[in-house]
Amino acid sequence: MTAPHPDTLTALRDLTRTFAAERDWQQFHTPKNLAMALSVEVAELVEHFQWLPTGALDELDERKREGVRHELADVLLYLVQLADKMDVDLREAALEKMRMNGEKYPAARVKGDARKYDEY
Amino acid sequence: MTAPHPDTLTALRDLTRTFAAERDWQQFHTPKNLAMALSVEVAELVEHFQWLPTGALDELDERKREGVRHELADVLLYLVQLADKMDVDLREAALEKMRMNGEKYPAARVKGDARKYDEY
Amino acid sequence: MTAPHPDTLTALRDLTRTFAAERDWQQFHTPKNLAMALSVEVAELVEHFQWLPTGALDELDERKREGVRHELADVLLYLVQLADKMDVDLREAALEKMRMNGEKYPAARVKGDARKYDEY
Amino acid sequence: MTAPHPDTLTALRDLTRTFAAERDWQQFHTPKNLAMALSVEVAELVEHFQWLPTGALDELDERKREGVRHELADVLLYLVQLADKMDVDLREAALEKMRMNGEKYPAARVKGDARKYDEY
Repeated sequence: MTAPHPDTLTALRDLTRTFAAERDWQQFHTPKNLAMALSVEVAELVEHFQWLPTGALDELDERKREGVRHELADVLLYLVQLADKMDVDLREAALEKMRMNGEKYPAARVKGDARKYDEY
Repeated sequence: MTAPHPDTLTALRDLTRTFAAERDWQQFHTPKNLAMALSVEVAELVEHFQWLPTGALDELDERKREGVRHELADVLLYLVQLADKMDVDLREAALEKMRMNGEKYPAARVKGDARKYDEY
Repeated sequence: MTAPHPDTLTALRDLTRTFAAERDWQQFHTPKNLAMALSVEVAELVEHFQWLPTGALDELDERKREGVRHELADVLLYLVQLADKMDVDLREAALEKMRMNGEKYPAARVKGDARKYDEY
Repeated sequence: MTAPHPDTLTALRDLTRTFAAERDWQQFHTPKNLAMALSVEVAELVEHFQWLPTGALDELDERKREGVRHELADVLLYLVQLADKMDVDLREAALEKMRMNGEKYPAARVKGDARKYDEY
Protein backbone atom coordinates (compact mmCIF):
# COMPACT_ATOMS: atom_id res chain seq x y z
CA MET A 1 0.00 0.00 0.00
CA THR A 2 1.50 3.28 -1.05
CA ALA A 3 -1.11 5.68 0.30
CA PRO A 4 0.47 7.52 3.21
CA HIS A 5 -2.88 8.33 4.84
CA PRO A 6 -5.19 5.33 4.89
CA ASP A 7 -8.79 6.01 5.65
CA THR A 8 -9.62 6.31 9.36
CA LEU A 9 -11.90 3.28 9.42
CA THR A 10 -9.21 1.15 7.78
CA ALA A 11 -6.56 2.53 10.12
CA LEU A 12 -8.71 1.78 13.18
CA ARG A 13 -9.40 -1.72 11.89
CA ASP A 14 -5.68 -2.35 11.59
CA LEU A 15 -4.96 -0.89 15.02
CA THR A 16 -7.60 -3.03 16.72
CA ARG A 17 -6.37 -6.14 14.91
CA THR A 18 -2.82 -5.59 16.16
CA PHE A 19 -4.01 -4.69 19.65
CA ALA A 20 -6.00 -7.91 20.03
CA ALA A 21 -3.31 -10.09 18.45
CA GLU A 22 -0.57 -8.77 20.73
CA ARG A 23 -2.68 -9.64 23.78
CA ASP A 24 -4.03 -12.95 22.49
CA TRP A 25 -7.53 -11.54 22.93
CA GLN A 26 -8.99 -12.62 19.56
CA GLN A 27 -10.25 -15.72 21.37
CA PHE A 28 -12.89 -13.54 23.11
CA HIS A 29 -13.87 -11.70 19.95
CA THR A 30 -16.61 -13.80 18.45
CA PRO A 31 -19.13 -11.67 16.55
CA LYS A 32 -21.71 -12.56 19.19
CA ASN A 33 -19.49 -11.32 22.01
CA LEU A 34 -18.52 -8.17 20.12
CA ALA A 35 -22.20 -7.39 19.47
CA MET A 36 -22.90 -7.71 23.20
CA ALA A 37 -19.90 -5.54 24.08
CA LEU A 38 -21.08 -2.94 21.57
CA SER A 39 -24.51 -2.85 23.20
CA VAL A 40 -22.95 -2.42 26.65
CA GLU A 41 -20.82 0.52 25.46
CA VAL A 42 -23.84 2.17 23.86
CA ALA A 43 -25.72 1.86 27.15
CA GLU A 44 -22.86 3.62 28.94
CA LEU A 45 -23.36 6.41 26.43
CA VAL A 46 -27.13 6.42 26.95
CA GLU A 47 -26.56 6.61 30.70
CA HIS A 48 -25.11 10.12 30.31
CA PHE A 49 -28.31 11.35 28.69
CA GLN A 50 -31.06 9.47 30.52
CA TRP A 51 -32.11 12.19 33.00
CA LEU A 52 -31.25 15.24 30.87
CA PRO A 53 -33.92 17.24 29.01
CA THR A 54 -32.26 17.00 25.58
CA GLY A 55 -28.56 16.28 26.15
CA ALA A 56 -27.49 19.54 24.45
CA LEU A 57 -23.88 20.44 25.19
CA ASP A 58 -24.75 23.10 27.77
CA GLU A 59 -26.53 20.45 29.88
CA LEU A 60 -23.25 18.53 30.36
CA ASP A 61 -20.33 19.67 32.51
CA GLU A 62 -16.71 19.12 31.47
CA ARG A 63 -16.44 15.72 33.20
CA LYS A 64 -19.57 14.39 31.51
CA ARG A 65 -18.44 15.64 28.11
CA GLU A 66 -15.16 13.82 28.53
CA GLY A 67 -17.09 10.68 29.51
CA VAL A 68 -19.30 10.97 26.42
CA ARG A 69 -16.21 11.43 24.24
CA HIS A 70 -14.65 8.22 25.58
CA GLU A 71 -17.87 6.23 25.21
CA LEU A 72 -18.29 7.43 21.62
CA ALA A 73 -14.76 6.15 20.94
CA ASP A 74 -15.49 2.80 22.58
CA VAL A 75 -18.61 2.34 20.48
CA LEU A 76 -16.69 3.08 17.27
CA LEU A 77 -13.89 0.69 18.23
CA TYR A 78 -16.22 -2.24 18.89
CA LEU A 79 -18.20 -1.41 15.76
CA VAL A 80 -15.03 -1.51 13.66
CA GLN A 81 -14.05 -4.86 15.17
CA LEU A 82 -17.46 -6.41 14.58
CA ALA A 83 -17.56 -5.17 10.98
CA ASP A 84 -14.08 -6.67 10.49
CA LYS A 85 -15.27 -10.11 11.66
CA MET A 86 -18.30 -9.81 9.37
CA ASP A 87 -16.14 -8.91 6.34
CA VAL A 88 -18.13 -5.70 6.02
CA ASP A 89 -16.53 -2.56 4.63
CA LEU A 90 -18.13 -0.01 6.97
CA ARG A 91 -17.44 2.89 4.63
CA GLU A 92 -19.13 1.28 1.65
CA ALA A 93 -22.01 -0.01 3.76
CA ALA A 94 -22.69 3.45 5.24
CA LEU A 95 -22.50 5.20 1.86
CA GLU A 96 -24.85 2.62 0.38
CA LYS A 97 -27.28 3.06 3.27
CA MET A 98 -27.27 6.83 2.77
CA ARG A 99 -28.17 6.33 -0.90
CA MET A 100 -30.97 3.93 0.08
CA ASN A 101 -32.32 6.39 2.65
CA GLY A 102 -32.24 9.16 0.07
CA GLU A 103 -34.37 7.11 -2.33
CA LYS A 104 -36.76 5.93 0.35
CA TYR A 105 -37.35 9.37 1.84
CA PRO A 106 -37.23 11.98 -0.94
CA ALA A 107 -36.77 15.38 0.68
CA ALA A 108 -39.61 16.95 -1.28
CA ARG A 109 -42.11 14.42 0.02
CA VAL A 110 -41.16 14.00 3.67
CA LYS A 111 -39.90 17.45 4.68
CA GLY A 112 -40.76 18.16 8.29
CA ASP A 113 -43.24 15.30 8.42
CA ALA A 114 -42.89 13.71 11.83
CA ARG A 115 -44.87 10.65 10.81
CA LYS A 116 -42.54 9.98 7.91
CA TYR A 117 -39.67 10.39 10.31
CA ASP A 118 -41.23 7.90 12.64
CA GLU A 119 -41.20 5.26 9.90
CA TYR A 120 -37.59 6.06 9.05
CA MET B 1 -11.72 22.46 0.75
CA THR B 2 -9.05 21.33 -1.67
CA ALA B 3 -8.46 17.81 -0.37
CA PRO B 4 -9.98 15.48 -2.96
CA HIS B 5 -10.50 12.61 -0.51
CA PRO B 6 -11.86 13.79 2.83
CA ASP B 7 -11.75 11.24 5.59
CA THR B 8 -14.72 8.87 5.66
CA LEU B 9 -15.93 9.99 9.07
CA THR B 10 -15.87 13.61 7.96
CA ALA B 11 -17.59 12.75 4.70
CA LEU B 12 -20.33 10.82 6.52
CA ARG B 13 -20.81 13.67 8.96
CA ASP B 14 -21.32 16.07 6.07
CA LEU B 15 -23.70 13.69 4.29
CA THR B 16 -25.85 13.20 7.40
CA ARG B 17 -25.93 16.95 8.04
CA THR B 18 -27.21 17.63 4.53
CA PHE B 19 -29.66 14.73 4.67
CA ALA B 20 -31.27 15.95 7.90
CA ALA B 21 -31.31 19.61 6.80
CA GLU B 22 -33.01 18.84 3.49
CA ARG B 23 -35.79 17.03 5.33
CA ASP B 24 -36.06 19.44 8.26
CA TRP B 25 -35.33 16.53 10.57
CA GLN B 26 -32.74 18.22 12.79
CA GLN B 27 -35.64 19.05 15.13
CA PHE B 28 -35.76 15.35 16.15
CA HIS B 29 -32.00 15.03 16.54
CA THR B 30 -31.34 16.00 20.12
CA PRO B 31 -28.34 14.13 21.53
CA LYS B 32 -30.72 12.29 23.85
CA ASN B 33 -32.88 11.09 20.95
CA LEU B 34 -29.85 10.13 18.87
CA ALA B 35 -28.43 8.11 21.76
CA MET B 36 -31.73 6.23 22.03
CA ALA B 37 -31.86 5.64 18.27
CA LEU B 38 -28.29 4.37 18.38
CA SER B 39 -29.21 1.88 21.11
CA VAL B 40 -32.19 0.67 19.09
CA GLU B 41 -30.04 0.10 15.99
CA VAL B 42 -27.47 -1.81 18.04
CA ALA B 43 -30.22 -4.05 19.39
CA GLU B 44 -31.31 -4.82 15.82
CA LEU B 45 -27.74 -5.94 15.25
CA VAL B 46 -27.68 -7.99 18.45
CA GLU B 47 -30.93 -9.64 17.37
CA HIS B 48 -29.11 -11.35 14.49
CA PHE B 49 -26.69 -13.02 16.92
CA GLN B 50 -28.81 -13.83 19.94
CA TRP B 51 -29.53 -17.49 19.23
CA LEU B 52 -26.34 -18.32 17.31
CA PRO B 53 -23.42 -20.19 18.92
CA THR B 54 -20.76 -17.58 18.05
CA GLY B 55 -22.08 -15.58 15.11
CA ALA B 56 -19.20 -16.65 12.86
CA LEU B 57 -19.86 -15.94 9.17
CA ASP B 58 -20.71 -19.56 8.34
CA GLU B 59 -23.57 -19.46 10.86
CA LEU B 60 -25.34 -16.71 8.84
CA ASP B 61 -27.05 -17.16 5.49
CA GLU B 62 -26.89 -14.52 2.77
CA ARG B 63 -30.05 -12.76 3.93
CA LYS B 64 -28.79 -12.45 7.48
CA ARG B 65 -25.39 -11.20 6.34
CA GLU B 66 -27.08 -8.48 4.33
CA GLY B 67 -29.17 -7.58 7.37
CA VAL B 68 -26.06 -7.36 9.55
CA ARG B 69 -24.36 -5.17 6.94
CA HIS B 70 -27.26 -2.70 6.94
CA GLU B 71 -27.46 -2.60 10.74
CA LEU B 72 -23.72 -1.96 11.01
CA ALA B 73 -24.21 0.97 8.64
CA ASP B 74 -27.15 2.33 10.66
CA VAL B 75 -25.12 2.17 13.87
CA LEU B 76 -22.24 4.07 12.27
CA LEU B 77 -24.57 6.72 10.85
CA TYR B 78 -26.24 7.45 14.19
CA LEU B 79 -22.86 7.39 15.93
CA VAL B 80 -21.50 9.98 13.49
CA GLN B 81 -24.54 12.20 14.05
CA LEU B 82 -24.34 11.98 17.84
CA ALA B 83 -20.61 12.75 17.80
CA ASP B 84 -21.34 15.73 15.57
CA LYS B 85 -23.84 17.16 18.08
CA MET B 86 -21.33 16.58 20.88
CA ASP B 87 -18.55 18.40 18.98
CA VAL B 88 -16.46 15.23 19.22
CA ASP B 89 -13.95 14.35 16.51
CA LEU B 90 -14.57 10.60 16.37
CA ARG B 91 -11.24 9.90 14.70
CA GLU B 92 -9.20 11.71 17.33
CA ALA B 93 -11.27 10.27 20.17
CA ALA B 94 -10.81 6.69 18.91
CA LEU B 95 -7.06 7.10 18.35
CA GLU B 96 -6.70 8.60 21.83
CA LYS B 97 -8.68 5.72 23.34
CA MET B 98 -6.45 3.18 21.60
CA ARG B 99 -3.38 4.88 23.11
CA MET B 100 -4.99 4.84 26.55
CA ASN B 101 -5.90 1.16 26.20
CA GLY B 102 -2.32 0.39 25.17
CA GLU B 103 -0.94 2.03 28.30
CA LYS B 104 -3.50 0.47 30.60
CA TYR B 105 -3.09 -3.06 29.25
CA PRO B 106 0.56 -3.58 28.25
CA ALA B 107 0.73 -6.66 26.03
CA ALA B 108 3.56 -8.23 28.00
CA ARG B 109 1.55 -8.19 31.22
CA VAL B 110 -1.95 -9.18 30.10
CA LYS B 111 -1.34 -11.60 27.24
CA GLY B 112 -4.02 -14.28 27.18
CA ASP B 113 -5.20 -13.40 30.67
CA ALA B 114 -8.95 -13.69 30.66
CA ARG B 115 -9.29 -11.90 33.99
CA LYS B 116 -7.38 -8.91 32.66
CA TYR B 117 -9.66 -8.99 29.67
CA ASP B 118 -12.66 -8.99 31.92
CA GLU B 119 -11.51 -5.73 33.52
CA TYR B 120 -10.86 -4.19 30.11
CA MET C 1 -48.92 -26.85 46.75
CA THR C 2 -52.12 -25.87 48.52
CA ALA C 3 -52.06 -22.11 47.94
CA PRO C 4 -54.81 -21.35 45.43
CA HIS C 5 -53.21 -18.12 44.22
CA PRO C 6 -49.48 -18.45 43.68
CA ASP C 7 -47.60 -15.22 43.29
CA THR C 8 -47.57 -13.83 39.74
CA LEU C 9 -43.80 -14.07 39.36
CA THR C 10 -43.88 -17.72 40.44
CA ALA C 11 -46.83 -18.44 38.17
CA LEU C 12 -45.07 -16.82 35.20
CA ARG C 13 -41.89 -18.77 35.94
CA ASP C 14 -43.87 -22.01 35.88
CA LEU C 15 -45.70 -21.05 32.68
CA THR C 16 -42.46 -20.19 30.86
CA ARG C 17 -40.84 -23.41 32.06
CA THR C 18 -43.68 -25.49 30.65
CA PHE C 19 -43.82 -23.47 27.44
CA ALA C 20 -40.12 -23.99 26.70
CA ALA C 21 -40.16 -27.66 27.70
CA GLU C 22 -43.14 -28.49 25.46
CA ARG C 23 -41.30 -26.99 22.48
CA ASP C 24 -37.84 -28.34 23.34
CA TRP C 25 -36.61 -24.75 23.36
CA GLN C 26 -34.59 -24.88 26.61
CA GLN C 27 -31.57 -25.66 24.43
CA PHE C 28 -31.58 -22.02 23.26
CA HIS C 29 -32.09 -20.61 26.74
CA THR C 30 -28.59 -20.17 28.09
CA PRO C 31 -28.38 -17.22 30.48
CA LYS C 32 -26.19 -15.44 27.93
CA ASN C 33 -28.80 -15.84 25.19
CA LEU C 34 -31.65 -14.83 27.48
CA ALA C 35 -29.76 -11.69 28.52
CA MET C 36 -29.32 -10.79 24.85
CA ALA C 37 -32.99 -11.47 24.10
CA LEU C 38 -33.98 -9.32 27.08
CA SER C 39 -31.89 -6.43 25.74
CA VAL C 40 -33.50 -6.78 22.31
CA GLU C 41 -37.01 -6.65 23.78
CA VAL C 42 -36.13 -3.58 25.85
CA ALA C 43 -34.89 -1.85 22.69
CA GLU C 44 -38.22 -2.59 21.00
CA LEU C 45 -39.81 -0.80 23.96
CA VAL C 46 -37.34 2.11 23.72
CA GLU C 47 -38.13 2.41 20.02
CA HIS C 48 -41.68 3.53 20.85
CA PHE C 49 -40.35 6.45 22.89
CA GLN C 50 -37.28 7.59 20.99
CA TRP C 51 -38.78 10.52 19.05
CA LEU C 52 -41.47 11.51 21.57
CA PRO C 53 -41.08 14.50 23.91
CA THR C 54 -41.74 12.55 27.12
CA GLY C 55 -43.68 9.43 26.19
CA ALA C 56 -46.68 10.46 28.30
CA LEU C 57 -49.83 8.49 27.47
CA ASP C 58 -51.41 11.27 25.41
CA GLU C 59 -48.42 11.21 23.04
CA LEU C 60 -49.21 7.60 22.03
CA ASP C 61 -52.10 6.51 19.87
CA GLU C 62 -54.02 3.29 20.54
CA ARG C 63 -51.80 1.16 18.29
CA LYS C 64 -48.62 2.37 19.96
CA ARG C 65 -50.07 1.78 23.43
CA GLU C 66 -50.88 -1.78 22.48
CA GLY C 67 -47.34 -2.21 21.15
CA VAL C 68 -45.89 -0.88 24.40
CA ARG C 69 -48.11 -3.23 26.40
CA HIS C 70 -46.84 -6.25 24.45
CA GLU C 71 -43.20 -5.20 24.72
CA LEU C 72 -43.56 -4.69 28.48
CA ALA C 73 -44.90 -8.24 28.69
CA ASP C 74 -42.03 -9.62 26.59
CA VAL C 75 -39.47 -7.92 28.82
CA LEU C 76 -41.07 -9.38 31.94
CA LEU C 77 -41.21 -12.87 30.42
CA TYR C 78 -37.52 -12.91 29.47
CA LEU C 79 -36.61 -11.40 32.84
CA VAL C 80 -38.48 -14.16 34.65
CA GLN C 81 -36.73 -16.82 32.57
CA LEU C 82 -33.27 -15.37 33.13
CA ALA C 83 -33.88 -15.08 36.88
CA ASP C 84 -35.02 -18.69 36.88
CA LYS C 85 -31.75 -19.86 35.26
CA MET C 86 -29.80 -17.78 37.78
CA ASP C 87 -31.67 -19.28 40.76
CA VAL C 88 -32.73 -15.78 41.73
CA ASP C 89 -36.03 -15.16 43.50
CA LEU C 90 -37.04 -11.95 41.72
CA ARG C 91 -39.49 -10.97 44.43
CA GLU C 92 -36.95 -11.22 47.24
CA ALA C 93 -34.24 -9.57 45.16
CA ALA C 94 -36.47 -6.60 44.30
CA LEU C 95 -37.66 -6.15 47.89
CA GLU C 96 -34.06 -6.30 49.12
CA LYS C 97 -33.00 -3.73 46.53
CA MET C 98 -35.79 -1.38 47.62
CA ARG C 99 -34.53 -1.63 51.21
CA MET C 100 -30.96 -0.94 50.08
CA ASN C 101 -32.09 2.07 48.03
CA GLY C 102 -34.02 3.40 51.02
CA GLU C 103 -30.91 3.28 53.21
CA LYS C 104 -28.62 4.72 50.55
CA TYR C 105 -30.92 7.62 49.65
CA PRO C 106 -32.74 8.78 52.80
CA ALA C 107 -35.69 10.91 51.73
CA ALA C 108 -34.82 13.73 54.10
CA ARG C 109 -31.37 14.16 52.60
CA VAL C 110 -31.98 13.75 48.87
CA LYS C 111 -35.44 15.21 48.35
CA GLY C 112 -35.68 16.91 44.98
CA ASP C 113 -31.90 16.92 44.55
CA ALA C 114 -31.20 16.17 40.91
CA ARG C 115 -27.52 15.50 41.57
CA LYS C 116 -28.37 12.86 44.15
CA TYR C 117 -30.73 11.38 41.66
CA ASP C 118 -28.02 11.30 39.08
CA GLU C 119 -25.85 9.13 41.35
CA TYR C 120 -28.77 6.82 42.07
CA MET D 1 -57.21 -2.80 51.33
CA THR D 2 -58.09 -5.94 53.21
CA ALA D 3 -56.10 -8.50 51.24
CA PRO D 4 -53.21 -9.52 53.46
CA HIS D 5 -50.96 -10.62 50.58
CA PRO D 6 -51.15 -8.34 47.55
CA ASP D 7 -49.55 -9.64 44.44
CA THR D 8 -45.82 -8.97 44.19
CA LEU D 9 -46.09 -6.79 41.10
CA THR D 10 -48.76 -4.66 42.77
CA ALA D 11 -46.73 -4.46 45.97
CA LEU D 12 -43.62 -3.38 44.05
CA ARG D 13 -45.61 -0.79 42.14
CA ASP D 14 -46.84 0.69 45.42
CA LEU D 15 -43.36 0.63 46.96
CA THR D 16 -41.80 2.42 43.98
CA ARG D 17 -44.60 5.00 43.95
CA THR D 18 -43.98 5.84 47.60
CA PHE D 19 -40.22 5.82 47.18
CA ALA D 20 -40.30 8.33 44.30
CA ALA D 21 -42.92 10.54 45.97
CA GLU D 22 -40.97 10.79 49.25
CA ARG D 23 -37.90 11.99 47.32
CA ASP D 24 -39.75 14.22 44.86
CA TRP D 25 -38.22 12.16 42.06
CA GLN D 26 -41.37 11.68 39.96
CA GLN D 27 -40.24 14.75 37.98
CA PHE D 28 -37.49 12.59 36.40
CA HIS D 29 -39.78 9.65 35.71
CA THR D 30 -41.19 10.36 32.29
CA PRO D 31 -41.90 7.14 30.38
CA LYS D 32 -39.12 8.09 27.96
CA ASN D 33 -36.59 8.45 30.78
CA LEU D 34 -37.73 5.25 32.48
CA ALA D 35 -37.37 3.34 29.19
CA MET D 36 -33.81 4.63 28.86
CA ALA D 37 -33.01 3.75 32.48
CA LEU D 38 -34.43 0.27 31.91
CA SER D 39 -32.17 -0.22 28.90
CA VAL D 40 -29.14 0.90 30.90
CA GLU D 41 -29.90 -1.58 33.70
CA VAL D 42 -30.34 -4.39 31.19
CA ALA D 43 -26.94 -3.56 29.71
CA GLU D 44 -25.38 -3.83 33.17
CA LEU D 45 -26.88 -7.30 33.31
CA VAL D 46 -25.61 -8.16 29.81
CA GLU D 47 -22.14 -6.98 30.86
CA HIS D 48 -21.87 -9.90 33.28
CA PHE D 49 -22.40 -12.40 30.45
CA GLN D 50 -20.62 -10.86 27.49
CA TRP D 51 -17.34 -12.80 27.67
CA LEU D 52 -18.70 -16.03 29.20
CA PRO D 53 -19.36 -19.15 27.11
CA THR D 54 -23.00 -19.59 28.19
CA GLY D 55 -23.41 -17.77 31.50
CA ALA D 56 -24.36 -20.99 33.33
CA LEU D 57 -24.18 -20.62 37.10
CA ASP D 58 -20.86 -22.44 37.44
CA GLU D 59 -19.22 -19.84 35.17
CA LEU D 60 -19.97 -17.08 37.72
CA ASP D 61 -18.23 -16.62 41.05
CA GLU D 62 -20.09 -15.49 44.16
CA ARG D 63 -19.43 -11.79 43.56
CA LYS D 64 -20.74 -11.96 39.99
CA ARG D 65 -23.84 -13.87 41.06
CA GLU D 66 -24.61 -11.18 43.60
CA GLY D 67 -24.12 -8.55 40.90
CA VAL D 68 -26.51 -10.38 38.57
CA ARG D 69 -29.07 -10.65 41.37
CA HIS D 70 -29.00 -6.90 41.97
CA GLU D 71 -29.21 -6.06 38.26
CA LEU D 72 -32.19 -8.39 37.83
CA ALA D 73 -33.88 -6.52 40.67
CA ASP D 74 -33.10 -3.13 39.10
CA VAL D 75 -34.55 -4.23 35.79
CA LEU D 76 -37.76 -5.39 37.45
CA LEU D 77 -38.09 -2.17 39.44
CA TYR D 78 -37.77 0.08 36.38
CA LEU D 79 -40.08 -2.21 34.42
CA VAL D 80 -42.74 -1.94 37.13
CA GLN D 81 -42.42 1.86 37.16
CA LEU D 82 -42.67 2.17 33.39
CA ALA D 83 -45.71 -0.13 33.27
CA ASP D 84 -47.29 2.00 35.99
CA LYS D 85 -46.88 5.19 33.94
CA MET D 86 -48.31 3.38 30.92
CA ASP D 87 -51.37 2.18 32.87
CA VAL D 88 -50.41 -1.38 31.99
CA ASP D 89 -51.22 -4.26 34.32
CA LEU D 90 -48.00 -6.25 33.88
CA ARG D 91 -49.56 -9.45 35.18
CA GLU D 92 -52.46 -9.38 32.74
CA ALA D 93 -50.22 -8.31 29.87
CA ALA D 94 -47.76 -11.17 30.49
CA LEU D 95 -50.50 -13.78 30.84
CA GLU D 96 -52.11 -12.53 27.63
CA LYS D 97 -48.77 -12.68 25.82
CA MET D 98 -48.22 -16.27 26.98
CA ARG D 99 -51.62 -17.20 25.53
CA MET D 100 -50.78 -15.48 22.26
CA ASN D 101 -47.40 -17.24 22.07
CA GLY D 102 -49.10 -20.57 22.71
CA GLU D 103 -51.46 -20.04 19.78
CA LYS D 104 -48.77 -18.75 17.45
CA TYR D 105 -46.31 -21.56 18.19
CA PRO D 106 -48.26 -24.77 18.80
CA ALA D 107 -45.93 -27.25 20.51
CA ALA D 108 -46.77 -30.06 18.11
CA ARG D 109 -45.70 -28.01 15.10
CA VAL D 110 -42.57 -26.22 16.30
CA LYS D 111 -40.96 -28.71 18.68
CA GLY D 112 -37.18 -28.44 18.52
CA ASP D 113 -37.32 -26.43 15.30
CA ALA D 114 -34.61 -23.82 15.54
CA ARG D 115 -35.95 -21.90 12.55
CA LYS D 116 -39.35 -21.59 14.20
CA TYR D 117 -37.58 -20.43 17.30
CA ASP D 118 -35.74 -17.83 15.32
CA GLU D 119 -39.02 -16.29 14.18
CA TYR D 120 -40.38 -16.33 17.73
